[in-house]
Amino acid sequence: MVKNEWGNSIYPLVPGHEIVGEVTEIGCKVQKFKAGDRVGVGCMVGSCHSCDNCINNLENYCPKMIFTYGTKYYDGAVTHGGYSNTMVVDEHFVVSIPENLPLDATAPLLCAGITVYSPLRFYGLDKPGLRVGVVGLGGLGHLAVKFAKAMGTNVTVISTSPRKQKEALENLGADSFLVSRDQDQLQAGIGTLDGIIDTVSTQHPLLPLLGLLKSHGKLVILGIPGKPFELQVFPLIQGRKLIGGSMIGGMKETQEMIDFAAEHNIKTDIEVIAMDYVNTAIDRLLKGDVKYRFVIDIGNTLRPSS
Amino acid sequence: MVKNEWGNSIYPLVPGHEIVGEVTEIGCKVQKFKAGDRVGVGCMVGSCHSCDNCINNLENYCPKMIFTYGTKYYDGAVTHGGYSNTMVVDEHFVVSIPENLPLDATAPLLCAGITVYSPLRFYGLDKPGLRVGVVGLGGLGHLAVKFAKAMGTNVTVISTSPRKQKEALENLGADSFLVSRDQDQLQAGIGTLDGIIDTVSTQHPLLPLLGLLKSHGKLVILGIPGKPFELQVFPLIQGRKLIGGSMIGGMKETQEMIDFAAEHNIKTDIEVIAMDYVNTAIDRLLKGDVKYRFVIDIGNTLRPSS
Repeated sequence: MVKNEWGNSIYPLVPGHEIVGEVTEIGCKVQKFKAGDRVGVGCMVGSCHSCDNCINNLENYCPKMIFTYGTKYYDGAVTHGGYSNTMVVDEHFVVSIPENLPLDATAPLLCAGITVYSPLRFYGLDKPGLRVGVVGLGGLGHLAVKFAKAMGTNVTVISTSPRKQKEALENLGADSFLVSRDQDQLQAGIGTLDGIIDTVSTQHPLLPLLGLLKSHGKLVILGIPGKPFELQVFPLIQGRKLIGGSMIGGMKETQEMIDFAAEHNIKTDIEVIAMDYVNTAIDRLLKGDVKYRFVIDIGNTLRPSS
Repeated sequence: MVKNEWGNSIYPLVPGHEIVGEVTEIGCKVQKFKAGDRVGVGCMVGSCHSCDNCINNLENYCPKMIFTYGTKYYDGAVTHGGYSNTMVVDEHFVVSIPENLPLDATAPLLCAGITVYSPLRFYGLDKPGLRVGVVGLGGLGHLAVKFAKAMGTNVTVISTSPRKQKEALENLGADSFLVSRDQDQLQAGIGTLDGIIDTVSTQHPLLPLLGLLKSHGKLVILGIPGKPFELQVFPLIQGRKLIGGSMIGGMKETQEMIDFAAEHNIKTDIEVIAMDYVNTAIDRLLKGDVKYRFVIDIGNTLRPSS
């Protein structure tokens, strides 16, 4: 979004949509929250509340959904995210954060967390004993491993980089690790997975991933590369496999995800930084040099502009 | 298969896998059939009977499934299809054809029919009131319209050719018709369909079809083009849409499909030809010059070779 890679950025653009904090003040009609509550805001701050998707608690697919930053709000002003000391937001788009979850390591669940949690549920990859692959071990991928494990599935991390094996197995608790550039490992893995959560947002071959799926297996794509994928349909037909997508989640499911994280003690692995470190952080992010999410300590480090 | 376009043809190759006839003789262990029964054989004549797919009545996805022609049978001999006066076949791969269905117009249901029926059921596109698109109006497409209508859905035929409109609406009973090369019609149809059955086996753009789907809509691809498709994942993600495949159906479901056809009086539109017309028929087929399936009258026209 900062670099307008999807072609829809509105400048000046202030990102920030994994936001946590405490309620300081409520409007007279607010019912769900009171001052002092620990809360979070994710990717969206508005929707139409009347379409089929909104009625089915899928505000994330509402055609009039308003993103937390870079979209026109109801009043026509462009939304500017959460890089600020205070924020005014409709309670419908606020989730409650249970006491046992630390605010900082919970913030990234509000986008990265729900982005992997929702498709695990929707595509039925949440049953104990199922074999789930996770492609890519970044902000989304490491959370996909944690949620999939907490749901009782057997998790295989699929990565181009053999040096992530120890991290995947020992630190994140994955059951196995597959190097996607190793033809022998790919061959040995053919037809072994019920589903794959693909978090990689650069272009990569889908055919080997489809090959890893059992019949009726599901490849869920969460990243959007700049160029189209090449799609060979033979494995889809011969094995009745499918390729699906998913985008964040509705507010009801986002609260469920946070409550599930609280119950299973799921936290994001984070590095907390000061506001004036953001440009360095962006550079490091582009090099994959973070485990796994930067969190900006706005409250203590944001200084008024002179 | 005749031209080895999928690269797996074994020559000499004798095609023919939508076969109907009468039982003339049964083996001593046969339980389901007796001499005189009206029966049909589809695309497969063998499978392992022990894998997960076989156990779940999905012999069509068994890795050891034996096609009715062009595959090695249990004994190592290559199967040679149904272009013959007699055929010996395992009763498990034989379906019963109810009295009210004519043999000739039922034959194509055994491949084309089950190929469209199975995904309508599996992908949940079989509920009254759903809006289903059918791309391509050939052997598969015209049956997809008939089955989808019989299931109570609202059917839109999607075709490159405006001259098929009358046929689609008046003869086949489709509810609406959309010319896929007409940008205005595509624009008006955005987000209107719950699912699409795509029967076209040449390469074509998927993006406009994904655009016609509602959120959570399903694009089912049944044809295998020689070249890969181009897949833009944005609509999959933004609308949680999916692209899936399907390949014929299991024996249990094939019998269900035939019984459903009998109940709803669904027949293939056919042109019956003599055996010595097959080369002309192939030429006409490649030009799309048949409504919609040639059926060879083997019994009356196959002559012993000299």
